[in-house]
Amino acid sequence: MPENLIPTPAAPPPDIVRCAYLDLVVTDLAASRDFYVDVLGLVVTHEDDDAVYLRSLEEFIHHNLVLRRGPVAAAAAFAYRVRAPEELDRVVAFYRELGCRVERRAEGFTRGVGDSVRVTDPLGFPYEFFYEVEHVERLAWRYDLHTPGALVRLDHFNQVTPDVPRAVRYMEDLGFRVTEDIQDAEGTTYAAWMRRKPTVHDTAMTGGDGPRLHHVAFATHEKHNIIAICDKLGALRQSDRIERGPGRHGVSNAFYLYLRDPDGHRVEIYTQDYWTGDPDNPVVTWDVHDNQRRDWWGNPVVPSWYTEASPVLDLDGNPQPVVARTDTSEMAVTIGADGFSYTRPEDDEDALPSWKQGEYKLGHQL
Amino acid sequence: MPENLIPTPAAPPPDIVRCAYLDLVVTDLAASRDFYVDVLGLVVTHEDDDAVYLRSLEEFIHHNLVLRRGPVAAAAAFAYRVRAPEELDRVVAFYRELGCRVERRAEGFTRGVGDSVRVTDPLGFPYEFFYEVEHVERLAWRYDLHTPGALVRLDHFNQVTPDVPRAVRYMEDLGFRVTEDIQDAEGTTYAAWMRRKPTVHDTAMTGGDGPRLHHVAFATHEKHNIIAICDKLGALRQSDRIERGPGRHGVSNAFYLYLRDPDGHRVEIYTQDYWTGDPDNPVVTWDVHDNQRRDWWGNPVVPSWYTEASPVLDLDGNPQPVVARTDTSEMAVTIGADGFSYTRPEDDEDALPSWKQGEYKLGHQL
Amino acid sequence: MPENLIPTPAAPPPDIVRCAYLDLVVTDLAASRDFYVDVLGLVVTHEDDDAVYLRSLEEFIHHNLVLRRGPVAAAAAFAYRVRAPEELDRVVAFYRELGCRVERRAEGFTRGVGDSVRVTDPLGFPYEFFYEVEHVERLAWRYDLHTPGALVRLDHFNQVTPDVPRAVRYMEDLGFRVTEDIQDAEGTTYAAWMRRKPTVHDTAMTGGDGPRLHHVAFATHEKHNIIAICDKLGALRQSDRIERGPGRHGVSNAFYLYLRDPDGHRVEIYTQDYWTGDPDNPVVTWDVHDNQRRDWWGNPVVPSWYTEASPVLDLDGNPQPVVARTDTSEMAVTIGADGFSYTRPEDDEDALPSWKQGEYKLGHQL
Amino acid sequence: MPENLIPTPAAPPPDIVRCAYLDLVVTDLAASRDFYVDVLGLVVTHEDDDAVYLRSLEEFIHHNLVLRRGPVAAAAAFAYRVRAPEELDRVVAFYRELGCRVERRAEGFTRGVGDSVRVTDPLGFPYEFFYEVEHVERLAWRYDLHTPGALVRLDHFNQVTPDVPRAVRYMEDLGFRVTEDIQDAEGTTYAAWMRRKPTVHDTAMTGGDGPRLHHVAFATHEKHNIIAICDKLGALRQSDRIERGPGRHGVSNAFYLYLRDPDGHRVEIYTQDYWTGDPDNPVVTWDVHDNQRRDWWGNPVVPSWYTEASPVLDLDGNPQPVVARTDTSEMAVTIGADGFSYTRPEDDEDALPSWKQGEYKLGHQL
Repeated sequence: MPENLIPTPAAPPPDIVRCAYLDLVVTDLAASRDFYVDVLGLVVTHEDDDAVYLRSLEEFIHHNLVLRRGPVAAAAAFAYRVRAPEELDRVVAFYRELGCRVERRAEGFTRGVGDSVRVTDPLGFPYEFFYEVEHVERLAWRYDLHTPGALVRLDHFNQVTPDVPRAVRYMEDLGFRVTEDIQDAEGTTYAAWMRRKPTVHDTAMTGGDGPRLHHVAFATHEKHNIIAICDKLGALRQSDRIERGPGRHGVSNAFYLYLRDPDGHRVEIYTQDYWTGDPDNPVVTWDVHDNQRRDWWGNPVVPSWYTEASPVLDLDGNPQPVVARTDTSEMAVTIGADGFSYTRPEDDEDALPSWKQGEYKLGHQL
Repeated sequence: MPENLIPTPAAPPPDIVRCAYLDLVVTDLAASRDFYVDVLGLVVTHEDDDAVYLRSLEEFIHHNLVLRRGPVAAAAAFAYRVRAPEELDRVVAFYRELGCRVERRAEGFTRGVGDSVRVTDPLGFPYEFFYEVEHVERLAWRYDLHTPGALVRLDHFNQVTPDVPRAVRYMEDLGFRVTEDIQDAEGTTYAAWMRRKPTVHDTAMTGGDGPRLHHVAFATHEKHNIIAICDKLGALRQSDRIERGPGRHGVSNAFYLYLRDPDGHRVEIYTQDYWTGDPDNPVVTWDVHDNQRRDWWGNPVVPSWYTEASPVLDLDGNPQPVVARTDTSEMAVTIGADGFSYTRPEDDEDALPSWKQGEYKLGHQL
Repeated sequence: MPENLIPTPAAPPPDIVRCAYLDLVVTDLAASRDFYVDVLGLVVTHEDDDAVYLRSLEEFIHHNLVLRRGPVAAAAAFAYRVRAPEELDRVVAFYRELGCRVERRAEGFTRGVGDSVRVTDPLGFPYEFFYEVEHVERLAWRYDLHTPGALVRLDHFNQVTPDVPRAVRYMEDLGFRVTEDIQDAEGTTYAAWMRRKPTVHDTAMTGGDGPRLHHVAFATHEKHNIIAICDKLGALRQSDRIERGPGRHGVSNAFYLYLRDPDGHRVEIYTQDYWTGDPDNPVVTWDVHDNQRRDWWGNPVVPSWYTEASPVLDLDGNPQPVVARTDTSEMAVTIGADGFSYTRPEDDEDALPSWKQGEYKLGHQL
Repeated sequence: MPENLIPTPAAPPPDIVRCAYLDLVVTDLAASRDFYVDVLGLVVTHEDDDAVYLRSLEEFIHHNLVLRRGPVAAAAAFAYRVRAPEELDRVVAFYRELGCRVERRAEGFTRGVGDSVRVTDPLGFPYEFFYEVEHVERLAWRYDLHTPGALVRLDHFNQVTPDVPRAVRYMEDLGFRVTEDIQDAEGTTYAAWMRRKPTVHDTAMTGGDGPRLHHVAFATHEKHNIIAICDKLGALRQSDRIERGPGRHGVSNAFYLYLRDPDGHRVEIYTQDYWTGDPDNPVVTWDVHDNQRRDWWGNPVVPSWYTEASPVLDLDGNPQPVVARTDTSEMAVTIGADGFSYTRPEDDEDALPSWKQGEYKLGHQL
């Protein structure tokens, strides 16, 4: 990787508060609105013919998700809030030094947001940074508006990138800290979780062909809220929106569910990870062969979850070319004919009970 | 099936109150005790070198599960409680008329239970009926003893039998009522749920090679209790005891989890089905191709759940021979190369999204 | 009480399945509809200018609650479903023998219900019995219609009557069984819970000036559903509808909440009592001085809960006169200057910590 | 207040990460251990004859609570973690400039903690600051150790002080930010909540005679965990440890419960407040007469909750003298003969329904 290394800028990074919103291009705005508003219960702050601005129930800024009508389903921006207006100058300097394309708009890129900077970052992702934003009513106490699956916060992004250590180093330069990762004994890193706010992550880097958006995640308060979403999807005969879960993550210890929206964009519903805000917060490293790392109950990851993801756009709105991962893939080393996943570290390859073999030994079956 | 029909006895059936306990042979009593007591938190009413008598937290009769040391892991008896001592005479007459082997013991077959009748029923299952039983403390209010995954009631049995309609007709003669079933347009019945107490079932008949025990089910109060059991299994690095779920059933509308005990006996944890006690309670019939019938969220059933089950014993303690199912199997018609499962009745075979194809099209993959 | 005893009829009682619906007169139909439909989420089966017919989400009969516009807020009928049409003949004979006014209508007393018998029972309550009823969609699987506080079943009635043992004896003649009661060492009975269906009760008799309706109770699946109702009432600035709770009952072991509707009718929301269907189900008797009997956490009962209740109507729609209780009242013996409630049986009167004295020693403040 | 104002030091405040532990003197160490360990399930990191060091299940530092045997039940230190070792120099400079007694110990004041500074702050509270601390196993994934009422984090302190605006100004100088407060139209502030970590508070200032400890709060993940603690206390016949709740706070929107330990120290169990980490997080100000401010459901606050609190110690271990509040008390203006609490802002004093009058109009009973 040395030849490939992203240099650490001399310019100090901006002080990022948290992931704030995702700007998402959808091909059928009405279908997407139905999914995010009528099914998931996100709140419409504003909408017009071209876009719907949505927020979660405990949010006080204008939006956490923009659905924008467009020709190609893709992520247009991963937006972070910075601590003060002047941090945007640092954003500009930081990314200019990295040789990235940088665009600043005093009036913002999306409704409700003021002075903002968008960049195509060294990994190829469209990142946005802003401080100025319109305040709206925090609906935390408006239980008359809450649904059984109430989404209360934007929790994190998850990005697919070919070279995880390279991405992590750049993100650490940007001021992020790793909380957990997945590695193997040979030193390959398969994924890493990084935070600004004191949860497990504001974003994660998942090893794969990238740059692509793996998912955006919203938080609920309790586990039954996530179950209620599944139950409602069943009632609506949309259970095929459920890609994976619900389950308990090993990484993050959160309870989770993965859905696919009408364009195939992946949305996670997430609850109950842990405090990571201490400066010496212990990093948790998981063995890629530990089958409880991604699902604490050992339920297998569906292959599409590893392989499918959404394109991301450059600052002109064109899809970024995707670079293939060259390291081994997590899917290949864990499931399928040559993969191996254990429940207990001392297990050998034949330790899987019959009811798990069909799931973990895809190549062997039938 | 006519040639095969079990005749309706002239003798009236006994008045059965509910499924009461399972007498289960295990090959490693210590390992089974660890699973049922230390992991699942069932309460020991009594134990000795050869058996452990367990009850759920809201039970007031001596036991809901007997773990009995033996050479072959099998179900020794499915025991039902009748409404009065004299119902046992009806049991004897009913089964004698059917030509079944009938054995009555005034002192009972298991500790804590008095006058009892055991039969090998026309389907080959060892059924027990009793009224007299030792009362023990109902621990409902003993929250100091409850665990996060507290099991509060025995809910039901589930039996594997080759010919479901034949079994149903006999069970109706015995006084049971069907609440739900799974059929196809050709008239094949794949499974049926039947009750005495006003829940969805005291037992179900699952089509397959039988007689075998498919599972025994215990109830919790809330869904998080079931999740807590999964989380604990993960912590104990026993997540491979989880065979299927957790999920929401279509049939019964209950939230569920299937575990496999150290002998491979299947245990369901179950909560929140519905009242069925009205005499005209509507029967719910599910289409076998509806992929929400067994999991309301459309998550696929793992093949082992269809194919594996426990032997049952005759009254001498020998395993019953297993008769093969001749009707089509639910697994064959729903998953695999020739199967078909839809999310919406109008879906055609290609409607499955990519993330479901690997799960439902086992034969197509790789 | 001997002079007062209600004789046991020679006629056998009808076979009652369960409490089925309450016919309730309200003075402002729109206000009541707002409370039961918009706040509590009961489902409208039918409505017209004079009445709204409501059901819970798992019900398949036409209604569990009728809101009927009228001049005096009162209970017009406590309706029970019997097991078969011919049971109504037994109802007629049973109550005629008791000298009660009996009225039978082949077309029913409320929309959706067929052949029915209404009586003014020996305690002065308007009781209805019916079998024929219109079936409607059971919305158990319609999670798209469920709210955070989803009410899934009618659970029970609760009636106020001056002489509890007299009432219990009559109800036992009618085929009910006592599951729990509250007594004192002197032999006074303060309340009793009685069931047909195998839960703790279909109705309870609460000692006080009567006949009056104490409350009607609907069940939710989980405790958070009840909390959600409180949260919503807060959001609507209707928190003053909350009279008592939420809390955990000692009696029944259920989690509960008491609300007051726009006319002051009391509604309980209730979840998770226990199976009582065995013929020898142990009766639980609570000491009236045990301050965990009505709230397992020792939170005091608000005085209005003891003293306020709704009138009941005779078969002509006139309010029944109320007879005063002559036995000591539960409120008087437990709170106030001369009352005594203990947390532990061995406690003396001074054992209450400072934070409980203001609650339990109302008399000391007076 | 001008004569009384605490000056803003020229020295910059330390960078405080979060409230970290409470050092608590108890008079019966065994009784306190039983309460915090056997009842509440806190985990013992270390114990000896004089002290027990406890942590919550997701904690990785040595302890969140020290129970220390002593002659007078009191709070010995409110300890905060700072972001780096060198912040302690700032602590020393900051408090020296304020003229406070400052004591620094390189070996720490409690086992498991290194270099620390303790001060008697301008409000009379014993505050501790530290960075160095022994790491221990974070038990987040150890579900085999979790109880139904699992406490997962230390959430906050709450302090009683006579002059809330004076206290707030000092705390803001120390780097805290106000998230919510309770005021009246006359400009009196009754309480204020302040945070370092991005939750509603690390500590709150409650108006009253002080300095005293109002309570220490631990977080659970879900609401049922809090209910489980109440249920267990009932089962142990210790329900009189429950002082107030469970309920939903207006302020903070959290679900809560207040307990009293064997010495009368108050412990809150708390879950699900909201993100406050944005620099422009909107401050929520509640009207003191709004009866949903402290309980969103309008359930009244028990008087002891307003009046009782624990002494705090000076750095020699002697109880601090208590200064009386001179502003009006929240209890006086809301409950009792001259108080007023409304459910809706437009309500007049007679708007309380009968079932609330006994609770809110204590003065009418007196």
